[in-house]
Amino acid sequence: MIKNFKLIIEYDGSRFHGWQRQKEDITVQGEIEKALKEMTSKTVTVIASGRTDAGVHAEGQVAHFKCETRLEPAAFFKGLNSLLAPDIVIKNCEQVSASFHARYKAKSKIYHYKILNRPIPAAIGRQYSWFIRQALNQDAMRAAMSYIVGLHDFKAFEATGSPRQRTTRHVFSADLSEKQEGLLIFHIEADGFLRCMVRNIVGTLVEVGREKLTVADFKYVLDSKDRSQAGATAPAHGLTLIKVNY
Amino acid sequence: MIKNFKLIIEYDGSRFHGWQRQKEDITVQGEIEKALKEMTSKTVTVIASGRTDAGVHAEGQVAHFKCETRLEPAAFFKGLNSLLAPDIVIKNCEQVSASFHARYKAKSKIYHYKILNRPIPAAIGRQYSWFIRQALNQDAMRAAMSYIVGLHDFKAFEATGSPRQRTTRHVFSADLSEKQEGLLIFHIEADGFLRCMVRNIVGTLVEVGREKLTVADFKYVLDSKDRSQAGATAPAHGLTLIKVNY
Repeated sequence: MIKNFKLIIEYDGSRFHGWQRQKEDITVQGEIEKALKEMTSKTVTVIASGRTDAGVHAEGQVAHFKCETRLEPAAFFKGLNSLLAPDIVIKNCEQVSASFHARYKAKSKIYHYKILNRPIPAAIGRQYSWFIRQALNQDAMRAAMSYIVGLHDFKAFEATGSPRQRTTRHVFSADLSEKQEGLLIFHIEADGFLRCMVRNIVGTLVEVGREKLTVADFKYVLDSKDRSQAGATAPAHGLTLIKVNY
Repeated sequence: MIKNFKLIIEYDGSRFHGWQRQKEDITVQGEIEKALKEMTSKTVTVIASGRTDAGVHAEGQVAHFKCETRLEPAAFFKGLNSLLAPDIVIKNCEQVSASFHARYKAKSKIYHYKILNRPIPAAIGRQYSWFIRQALNQDAMRAAMSYIVGLHDFKAFEATGSPRQRTTRHVFSADLSEKQEGLLIFHIEADGFLRCMVRNIVGTLVEVGREKLTVADFKYVLDSKDRSQAGATAPAHGLTLIKVNY
């Protein structure tokens, strides 16, 4: 009997060349599929809600895999966690209906981007935030960020060289909070994301924070649908996929 | 003119064989002295408030070094931070009187030990806490911990093979808090610590949390002054030197 399993996965992206399986490089999908092969002696494909790029972390990536097996979810939960290195953790494994698809059934995803904005960098936890020494204008970034909420064509914030046919996405919420002094968290929830969309939005917001762009400039960039107008891509290691909603 | 400089140092201990300079292995002291040599062309000895063991982190290690130099503290601050790898950060550098000594003048030190106590480990930040799956009895650990406050002979919690003549230390405060769900922080402030003292105390408190020892047993271990009575040494990577007071 073919069963469909849903996984919730946390990973520290530091060591991985992203989610997607590659021939040479170590990836999260590759590692999980290798462990599944060890458990089932079968070639199993694990499909995630979306790919994360090299260096990006996840607290709640969701994936599914179909497999003809007698094994129960608890066995996969335990077996995968003992086979995988400690930078990938299976937080949950459950059997779901055959129709569940981690990518197509996702209703929204939440990403957090962390910036450490203070005069002195951190040694501890430096893997999880982008360090920026120069003081950023948070009010300006917040004002600019409000423009992305709603249904927009985000083509200006799509990675070059990876065009999608449909570049309109619905951003349900976007805000910026200061968790502890100097630790800024950009929270974005949307029905989907273009390649590098969060990192390009954050990179451009940082230009606003540095007062190289005005809030109005940010809106202009968004409306331009032109990638060359936007700021540099923020580094991968500040980004974490927090949750996928179904 | 010989100047005396005081440093406040943060480091992620993961990669280091502890603070103390070693011939072969990479250490925090070794890295800072190497950078100072590069800056001053002199062999400079950096003396810390105390050694930290391999894998132990510091948010606020304090050290001093004496050097005949025209360089100002700001130059060392900037120069060291650009020469050192990102897992060592100089948070402050100031010139102090010739009599300042990072070890002998320390009045107290604060250590935190972190335990992640929940059913599922973390991938993100796993380098900074000891993961324990089995639920720990926090009330019992708190009650046991209260016994270490005050002036005591901590010989039972000293690493074997590294005896000090005087094993009495004054613990000014010791408490356990739950920062977020499942993240336990043991906070201990004392006038000084024996080798592995915090890790041996935490290892024994965990036996109390697991209800293998009672609170009274813990007091018995402390009073015994006998290392063989205490629990296993908690792993290094949960421990962080937070602050040194002068």
